Amino acid sequence: MNQEFFNLEVKTGGQKLYEFTDQTINWIKKNNFNNGIVNLSIQHTSASLIVQENADPDVQTDLINYFDKLAPMDNKLYIHTTEGKDDMPAHIKSALTNNQISLSVRNAELLLGTWQGLYLFEHRINAQNRIIIHHFIGD
Amino acid sequence: MNQEFFNLEVKTGGQKLYEFTDQTINWIKKNNFNNGIVNLSIQHTSASLIVQENADPDVQTDLINYFDKLAPMDNKLYIHTTEGKDDMPAHIKSALTNNQISLSVRNAELLLGTWQGLYLFEHRINAQNRIIIHHFIGD
Amino acid sequence: MNQEFFNLEVKTGGQKLYEFTDQTINWIKKNNFNNGIVNLSIQHTSASLIVQENADPDVQTDLINYFDKLAPMDNKLYIHTTEGKDDMPAHIKSALTNNQISLSVRNAELLLGTWQGLYLFEHRINAQNRIIIHHFIGD
Repeated sequence: MNQEFFNLEVKTGGQKLYEFTDQTINWIKKNNFNNGIVNLSIQHTSASLIVQENADPDVQTDLINYFDKLAPMDNKLYIHTTEGKDDMPAHIKSALTNNQISLSVRNAELLLGTWQGLYLFEHRINAQNRIIIHHFIGD
Repeated sequence: MNQEFFNLEVKTGGQKLYEFTDQTINWIKKNNFNNGIVNLSIQHTSASLIVQENADPDVQTDLINYFDKLAPMDNKLYIHTTEGKDDMPAHIKSALTNNQISLSVRNAELLLGTWQGLYLFEHRINAQNRIIIHHFIGD
Repeated sequence: MNQEFFNLEVKTGGQKLYEFTDQTINWIKKNNFNNGIVNLSIQHTSASLIVQENADPDVQTDLINYFDKLAPMDNKLYIHTTEGKDDMPAHIKSALTNNQISLSVRNAELLLGTWQGLYLFEHRINAQNRIIIHHFIGD
């Protein structure tokens, strides 16, 4: 059994989807992983990991707008307001999406569908340094 | 360490929950898996994988209706409308639920609760061919 | 390869977040796990597992209130009402969050961010006995 770890750092600048599919695939290739699971976990509760469409960028804009309407940045709606109007909505968006994704690797290939990409979904307004832990277990 | 892969194909015909618990359990039995993780990932971003109640079918109807209200099929709400009024809501429902589930197998038994079933949640209106990757890692 | 299982029982008393980070970490320490995945799965579809902020308890109150507004306890909205006004909203909240989380362990340490805690999110009003399966695979 082989296990490897890698911390991917993503510098974000506002509420957007940041694709990191290539960084994950490059790490798999560089390490010659064959079969196994890549466990991704983001070490923050105000940003998410999601698998989404990588074709039309309008999908990303619609997602951002949708989640902003679903969890509005309106201090009157929340008790926890000390960290800014975007912080509580960010925790809610995190709860509505995912902190963690497990992906399968088969014959050295990351098993994603043709139109699937890996994204960090940033929910905070200001610049952030985000850590996405990559953990491979397999052979 | 033992690893096996299996692509389950599900032909869908509209916005419904399609149960596949038996297919997953049969695959585990056929391969004599003992202890390990079954990693399920759907290779599409307009359908989801969910674990839900398998007792009262009304729960499924309520879930479908609820998600349709939460992400309405109304082109005026979205920029990405070229693939039909159901496509952007499908991506949103995918983001709100799951693309991927990891289940544990212990002593050859899939560890689901008494009332839990595995479902493909189809968000598109028209017929689709969906692939759910099954990946076992264990012994 | 080492695999261990442990059923954590959590007695809940109403719609709240119940932290169990310490129980998971203690189980890892007691068993001297080194590197691997801890797969957590809740055996119920009316409560969730989430990773959330462990600093300001107001975040938890806001989350509970938010999800109650998003999936209201109003029998007129649902067909499945026989198990109480909180049951169908509980299934919806379960679908909107997670039944299952995979966490990484590296050098005997559970890889959670500084402000992250593990929570059972109870969606039912009455007291419940919840089982969270812990499954370690690694070395």
